[in-house]
Amino acid sequence: MAEEQEPDAAVIEPVPEAELSPELLVARYLEDNDLEKVREFATGLHYADLADLFERLSKDERIRLAGVIRDNFDPEVLSELDDAVRDDVVSALSVKQVASALTELDTDDALLVLEEMDAEQQQRFLKHVPEEDRTLIEEGLSYPEDSAGRLMQREVVTVPGHWNVGQCIDFVRRKADADEDERDLPEIFYDIFVVDARRHPVGAVSLSKLLSTRRPVPISDVMDPEMHQIAVNTDQEDVAFLFRQRDLVSAPVVDANGRLVGAITIDDVVDVIHEEHEEDIMRMGGVIEDDLYRAALTTTRARFSWLVVNLLTAILASMVIGLFDATIEQAVALAVLMPIVASMGGNAGTQTLTVTVRALATKELTVSNASRVITKEVIVGSLNGVLFAVLTGLITWLWFQNSTLGGVIAAAMVINMVVAGLAGTTIPIMLERFGVDPAIASSVFLTTVTDVVGFFAFLGLAALVLL
Amino acid sequence: MAEEQEPDAAVIEPVPEAELSPELLVARYLEDNDLEKVREFATGLHYADLADLFERLSKDERIRLAGVIRDNFDPEVLSELDDAVRDDVVSALSVKQVASALTELDTDDALLVLEEMDAEQQQRFLKHVPEEDRTLIEEGLSYPEDSAGRLMQREVVTVPGHWNVGQCIDFVRRKADADEDERDLPEIFYDIFVVDARRHPVGAVSLSKLLSTRRPVPISDVMDPEMHQIAVNTDQEDVAFLFRQRDLVSAPVVDANGRLVGAITIDDVVDVIHEEHEEDIMRMGGVIEDDLYRAALTTTRARFSWLVVNLLTAILASMVIGLFDATIEQAVALAVLMPIVASMGGNAGTQTLTVTVRALATKELTVSNASRVITKEVIVGSLNGVLFAVLTGLITWLWFQNSTLGGVIAAAMVINMVVAGLAGTTIPIMLERFGVDPAIASSVFLTTVTDVVGFFAFLGLAALVLL
Repeated sequence: MAEEQEPDAAVIEPVPEAELSPELLVARYLEDNDLEKVREFATGLHYADLADLFERLSKDERIRLAGVIRDNFDPEVLSELDDAVRDDVVSALSVKQVASALTELDTDDALLVLEEMDAEQQQRFLKHVPEEDRTLIEEGLSYPEDSAGRLMQREVVTVPGHWNVGQCIDFVRRKADADEDERDLPEIFYDIFVVDARRHPVGAVSLSKLLSTRRPVPISDVMDPEMHQIAVNTDQEDVAFLFRQRDLVSAPVVDANGRLVGAITIDDVVDVIHEEHEEDIMRMGGVIEDDLYRAALTTTRARFSWLVVNLLTAILASMVIGLFDATIEQAVALAVLMPIVASMGGNAGTQTLTVTVRALATKELTVSNASRVITKEVIVGSLNGVLFAVLTGLITWLWFQNSTLGGVIAAAMVINMVVAGLAGTTIPIMLERFGVDPAIASSVFLTTVTDVVGFFAFLGLAALVLL
Repeated sequence: MAEEQEPDAAVIEPVPEAELSPELLVARYLEDNDLEKVREFATGLHYADLADLFERLSKDERIRLAGVIRDNFDPEVLSELDDAVRDDVVSALSVKQVASALTELDTDDALLVLEEMDAEQQQRFLKHVPEEDRTLIEEGLSYPEDSAGRLMQREVVTVPGHWNVGQCIDFVRRKADADEDERDLPEIFYDIFVVDARRHPVGAVSLSKLLSTRRPVPISDVMDPEMHQIAVNTDQEDVAFLFRQRDLVSAPVVDANGRLVGAITIDDVVDVIHEEHEEDIMRMGGVIEDDLYRAALTTTRARFSWLVVNLLTAILASMVIGLFDATIEQAVALAVLMPIVASMGGNAGTQTLTVTVRALATKELTVSNASRVITKEVIVGSLNGVLFAVLTGLITWLWFQNSTLGGVIAAAMVINMVVAGLAGTTIPIMLERFGVDPAIASSVFLTTVTDVVGFFAFLGLAALVLL
């Protein structure tokens, strides 16, 4: 037993290296200036783990690490990094090293690395990229950001419709055997596409279909002519929706003339789904862009604007309270209780809002069932409104020994919860109709409504009844 | 031109059928009792579109539609439906029809249909399923819900390590040519797995690799021995994380003895990613389970418990205000202004919380960089705190012509924004450490902190300074 060998070792030892997380280990090596160990450790990692390591280090450590391993740098790492982290890593590489990484990467990954840079910076790297790759990359950059054109791989296996299965297989094998330069096979692929003389896709054949069919069978007999073609300008969110809806694994991408220009595969779409997901959550939390890796000053500036909007709505709510200052002066219990009504309305409304915003995003909520959803939410609001009216009414009565006050808060609670159900559904539906993303703007409108109505109903009723 | 043919057609016509959405069209047919048209329209749809149609109809229409098309029912529809909607559809089918759907579906999809039912109901359908399929399904049901065992397909192509590429391809072709009963090829597959004599996976070969290699090459030369094996009990969230992290397309699933029992493919994982995503968003909005299709009463009950928790925190905040009722009585402006400080703290804290909760979920935030993230958020809180202190201080000064009151609200604002940054990071980190899902519980703790601190700081300072 290791413990028995050193029974009285009371000296505080540093944590043994084997128990350290990769980032602490590398941070320690960097601190000790033991660059050989850093190099040995980091170059032994899978590119995804190396990317995680970069993300977890501090900015300084990150740049030092990139500098240490720049000569054995796996370009795949770059496509896995968060934008802000990638900037740091790229800054530690030489222009030629970045250019050679761009050349080695698949077009879609090279675009990821370049798309956040300005045109001048892009050209600084691109002029060292061999012409053929450069043309493909520059074409890619000409498609709108977040479009199918940015996601697709340019390398696609295409065959004419008059071939048979055996010819198709031989064609793939010949391509694989060809020299590096000739070998324009994608790294990995799941379908081959049948095209006509003008390169319009006429069918798709999955590799499992191709493999399980005998060689003499004509390819046109096994192809699926009803594949989903994606226009090169399609937004990536729509691409992701289509893949998920239709359980697709790959799909051909066509230009404005219907010619095949590339293919999107599901592994790219998984990243898109994840990205859009994070974006949705961030927006609902009032964060415009994920800022985990951004500097404090940048983050402050980005979040400031959202908080300004919230300040305005808070001031609006305060003005409503201000209308009733005379009432509050007479019964200070109102000031004590008023946040309860507003807060419960806000929370109930947020529940409704969340369900509605998601149903809109997943296209489960449409014109035809909108009125059913609104009706239901108003019913839910009324039911919970009555339940919480009874609860808060009783609590208030006991707390302040005042049954009228209990009645006032109960009535205000029902009003605000019903309004919350109504606002939580109608606000996002209306925003969507006006072309505004409901995920961003809904919550601020909602809390404005529930605060204003909550304070107004409670204080207004109190003014009528109590004074 | 169609318009010129009827230049003065002023009669109000019903909306032409071609312009109606599928659900309105079907609803109209059902209303007219034109069941033949319903059947014709619905059976012509892709299963994913038919599933959408079911989801958008009302409960009654949905059950009627299922009844009308039950004899030409595509079982794939069932695996695409929301749980509540699926219950309605299943209720309109006969036991034998459900059983035959279960038989026809891939195991993982059949499990989806069955897993929400109680054991008795499951057996009612399963006893009509042929023994072989029933065994597979019952084995699947024995794995924990949301585990790899539920996600995997049982049908996998396995080959011994001593074969060459040609033998593997011939094996797949022979399987595909075999009779329906013998043909245990999966519907679609992307990899074949090399196993040893005890059925332990030793390597994976992608079909694109297999196809692009010449026939005499030994399969062991082209297989990837470093595939990621997934234990059958692994949680689906971890499966999804692994697929995304490693850009996997399929992975072998092994039992406790390391024997291959199935394979998970990326199309299943896409659904998991989407599901987990929706769950995350719902939780952050205080909705335990997506309830779009649930009845109003069920929804009310589900949301009630969350609102009770919020009521308690609102009462806590009220009690803090109650401590200062004497102060408020003297300066009612305090009651008017106090929600501003609390609300700004809540919103700033929610921004921080959102970033932190996501960074924890994606494992970007770990022990090693936690202190860096916390420090940054406190700095951001201080900076925005100072900015909003100046803004609200000035507004208050102008509004109430009282510079001391402006100073008080400014000081309270800085305190609450700094606390918001601190609480927004430390609350989710601590919850995660105690094994509680930070997505559910964080926001309620956060708003409690920002409300209590906001009211206490503002009113407390006012009591000290103004009176």
